[in-house]
Amino acid sequence: MTDQICRVSAEEFQAILDEGVTFANWWGFQTESLSYGRFTLRQPVRKDHQRPGGIVGGPVLFGLADSALYGLVMTVAGPVKMAITTDMSIRFLRPAGLRDTDLLAEARLIKAGKRLVIGEVAIRHEDEEDPVCHATGTYSIPPK
Amino acid sequence: MTDQICRVSAEEFQAILDEGVTFANWWGFQTESLSYGRFTLRQPVRKDHQRPGGIVGGPVLFGLADSALYGLVMTVAGPVKMAITTDMSIRFLRPAGLRDTDLLAEARLIKAGKRLVIGEVAIRHEDEEDPVCHATGTYSIPPK
Amino acid sequence: MTDQICRVSAEEFQAILDEGVTFANWWGFQTESLSYGRFTLRQPVRKDHQRPGGIVGGPVLFGLADSALYGLVMTVAGPVKMAITTDMSIRFLRPAGLRDTDLLAEARLIKAGKRLVIGEVAIRHEDEEDPVCHATGTYSIPPK
Amino acid sequence: MTDQICRVSAEEFQAILDEGVTFANWWGFQTESLSYGRFTLRQPVRKDHQRPGGIVGGPVLFGLADSALYGLVMTVAGPVKMAITTDMSIRFLRPAGLRDTDLLAEARLIKAGKRLVIGEVAIRHEDEEDPVCHATGTYSIPPK
Repeated sequence: MTDQICRVSAEEFQAILDEGVTFANWWGFQTESLSYGRFTLRQPVRKDHQRPGGIVGGPVLFGLADSALYGLVMTVAGPVKMAITTDMSIRFLRPAGLRDTDLLAEARLIKAGKRLVIGEVAIRHEDEEDPVCHATGTYSIPPK
Repeated sequence: MTDQICRVSAEEFQAILDEGVTFANWWGFQTESLSYGRFTLRQPVRKDHQRPGGIVGGPVLFGLADSALYGLVMTVAGPVKMAITTDMSIRFLRPAGLRDTDLLAEARLIKAGKRLVIGEVAIRHEDEEDPVCHATGTYSIPPK
Repeated sequence: MTDQICRVSAEEFQAILDEGVTFANWWGFQTESLSYGRFTLRQPVRKDHQRPGGIVGGPVLFGLADSALYGLVMTVAGPVKMAITTDMSIRFLRPAGLRDTDLLAEARLIKAGKRLVIGEVAIRHEDEEDPVCHATGTYSIPPK
Repeated sequence: MTDQICRVSAEEFQAILDEGVTFANWWGFQTESLSYGRFTLRQPVRKDHQRPGGIVGGPVLFGLADSALYGLVMTVAGPVKMAITTDMSIRFLRPAGLRDTDLLAEARLIKAGKRLVIGEVAIRHEDEEDPVCHATGTYSIPPK
């Protein structure tokens, strides 16, 4: 897989977020790294991402995971901004504290079909190995 | 099930959102109705909930579904603000357009255990019957 | 939904199981009832469906849920025997005892698309209301 | 993780299958390898595992994945035969042909909690790299 060409650039992905994903700004995503079948998205956590217990809310983590998969899909299918999630299964493993360290969502390809791309994502604090969240999801790529 | 007593009030749930769920404001949730094992959450859709295609982003729908389940849990377990999602499986069924009509997330109890509560949620436009999104999820209730 | 025509008969469904689903015999499925968007499958539990604790094994319940969805798909799409599961999310709610009463898997339509059909299934003992298992799943219907 | 001690032996796991998992015989599982946080289960495919299209039925793959997770749980928690699946999310990626080569289910630990163990499983034909099936699941370990 590693010798296949990444079909989107960080700039193209960022432009798609800037132009069409109006909520990306609220989340505060930044592309960390990408290659064919791999995509890492970084997110600083802010006070307004919080839920009771002083931890990051599940919806905030879902948005991060889903957006990392969105980027992953583009590494194999190109800048298909109309790709949409068909389903996601997400597991919250331990509380994600509201700390100074960013969250990293590391997405990895499970299957690249012509119309469906399936991947998994693990989210962790930048300075920790154990994930706080794990998700698998399917994206549907619209016909051209 | 219908003759059991609802263990949270709309005011108590709203107070939990106001005090501790800082992101609830961005979403714009409003409690529509609640009874034991049922909870409906209403959400107006705004321009900043949008993703490419002029539709509501998946993470916005997830946040709505997850919060409706949070309310559902409290109808059976009381105002347990520390209840946390352990996992969710969410399916996006059709695009949710950015329309004037609100979204309604209707949650229904599947199982109320002592420590785990499982429910399902269907999200639809207020003026349509067909759901745009369906989810099932488990909440864990911390020991007192 | 109730006034739409069921597109498969119990006999057609049974013939598909008999001819092509070699493992259906081991499970022992029997069609209980069907209509457009509804399908109920009955299953007696046998000693060889057992796992430690004297309860029905998870894989046995999965097979029952998946097969009820298979029937559900046909109520809306006709006898499409090549329809295949793309994904399932299954929750085991309480132990299913090895009792004399049969299990009933009641499937209900969530969405009928041209290529994808999504449904949910609850499994319960015939003489009990509370489900032992709940699942949602997507079936893909091959182009003709 | 690699330097932690595996808390079950292949013989102990096999004994649990032999004594209490009556359906394991029908499936035909064999432990391939195990270490802390890793478990690989092998399964020959037989004619009676077949569904229309001449492929292995989804329930057969589910049973293989679930049983590999069962073994995985024991590598971290010891021979806890009463551990039970609370939920599984399974994705069928491509048809698993009824071939002479066996299927291998490779399970990997995501999180080992005291009461909940979460893992993922990929199933592939022995002579192919691309998985036919991917699943994540949670097992609950009963208090002693």
